[in-house]
Amino acid sequence: MSYQAKHVLQESEVVVGYTTYIELIQDIIAPHQTVIRSHMKKEVERALEALEEAKAGKVVSVISSGDAGIYGMAGLILELLYKNNLEEYIEVEIVPGISAVQAAAARLGAPLMHDFACISLSDLLTPWQTIVKRIHHAAQGDFVIVLYNPKSKKRIEQIQEAVDILLQYKKTDTPVGIVKSAYREGEEVHISSLESLLEHEIDMFTTIIIGNQSTFMNKTHMITPRGYNIHE
Amino acid sequence: MSYQAKHVLQESEVVVGYTTYIELIQDIIAPHQTVIRSHMKKEVERALEALEEAKAGKVVSVISSGDAGIYGMAGLILELLYKNNLEEYIEVEIVPGISAVQAAAARLGAPLMHDFACISLSDLLTPWQTIVKRIHHAAQGDFVIVLYNPKSKKRIEQIQEAVDILLQYKKTDTPVGIVKSAYREGEEVHISSLESLLEHEIDMFTTIIIGNQSTFMNKTHMITPRGYNIHE
Ligand SMILES: C[S@@+](CC[C@H](N)C(=O)[O-])C[C@H]1O[C@@H](n2cnc3c(N)ncnc32)[C@H](O)[C@@H]1O
Ligand SMILES: C[S@@+](CC[C@H](N)C(=O)[O-])C[C@H]1O[C@@H](n2cnc3c(N)ncnc32)[C@H](O)[C@@H]1O
Repeated sequence: MSYQAKHVLQESEVVVGYTTYIELIQDIIAPHQTVIRSHMKKEVERALEALEEAKAGKVVSVISSGDAGIYGMAGLILELLYKNNLEEYIEVEIVPGISAVQAAAARLGAPLMHDFACISLSDLLTPWQTIVKRIHHAAQGDFVIVLYNPKSKKRIEQIQEAVDILLQYKKTDTPVGIVKSAYREGEEVHISSLESLLEHEIDMFTTIIIGNQSTFMNKTHMITPRGYNIHE
Repeated sequence: MSYQAKHVLQESEVVVGYTTYIELIQDIIAPHQTVIRSHMKKEVERALEALEEAKAGKVVSVISSGDAGIYGMAGLILELLYKNNLEEYIEVEIVPGISAVQAAAARLGAPLMHDFACISLSDLLTPWQTIVKRIHHAAQGDFVIVLYNPKSKKRIEQIQEAVDILLQYKKTDTPVGIVKSAYREGEEVHISSLESLLEHEIDMFTTIIIGNQSTFMNKTHMITPRGYNIHE
């Protein structure tokens, strides 16, 4: 957590967030602060509730895991702010945070030292064909590819199809990092290869990083060289 | 800055970094700590110096701006660690940070709510043709596109060529965010369009974010909708 994030949390009169995330910041919240817990998939309601409180003059924080600006709550808050013509009354500040891709990368070594593309495999809000097209282009462009939301209990086929597409362009032994619950209880870090990726346990708290053509594994680390000539 | 970053800095006996970055953390460094300042473009020497100190038993921190794992020093340190067979003697920990793309996004609104690709326009270490290929694919895949290292005093043509390529696929009025020195002295935040991007001042402390097909501008914010149905 950043100093800025802790500071704005402590300055807030109301804290709104998904139950699990509220638990993670329990020890920062003081008794005089109002906490509004909400359930998964209730993002729109959560955002509207936060805007209601802010409209009533309260200083409100809305919690996202990782970075609120990366598949987080920031966009929805701003969309609803304008839709409800509240931009004159409510000032919104986005506080950046460490995103899952960075937490995962730090645990794996240095897989992101070169150009990378982040793709969410969740087709709840995005047509699967759009996601498929992006996987093709990310692979053809030889990006390091980061998969958010790779799999949930009900969504299990997307990751299989993604691997099939990636294998059309990338070698079977392309290094792959699989990080579950980075920096959290139950953290698991694995380095594997593209052809063996699906043998690993993957769930909704997992982020997957697939190397580019020059990414290599070295004992416990996954490294994408940036291109410095270190062999002179 | 994160609590973890400050903590490891304070635990370090030696702090190694590019002069400008050392200045930014001056007030965290204590008199008993050894500071090794180095110049731009001396990354390999800087990394070797840090490894020398660590080999001598010291606790050493190497500073990057933003996230050390994103176009930062993490990869080089690990590459040189293995090349010099030091992995049995030195334990390396990567500490993630807020990267320029996240700082820029937070200042612009919520441009990264959907799949995005980060591309560095610096061809010092990467063949320009590789970069060009990636720009084509990122645009064809309709990614939000983030440009690191867009321009320096000597490197001025890359950004022009990048815009030409992007205009082959993206509309002229695609929203573009231009953020200089995010969260630093002299910060500047502009929202513009792809066709007007080059009218803005762009330098080596600037990060550029180019929207996807659904990104829009709303007064002071650049927003990429994630796809929630908020119009029911
Ligand atoms: C809706 S996205 C939220 C991303 C979040 N805003 C961020 O910046 O990290 C949820 C996905 O993020 C990833 N994720 C979140 N927390 C994680 C963690 N601690 N370790 C690994 N992946 C995580 C998983 O891929 C998960 O499916
Ligand atoms: C070699 S890269 C270092 C990136 C860094 N490791 C990070 O994660 O942000 C340098 C580039 O990062 C971007 N950058 C670094 N600091 C910035 C800031 N404060 N505001 C905007 N862009 C920044 C610029 O595009 C710059 O050319």
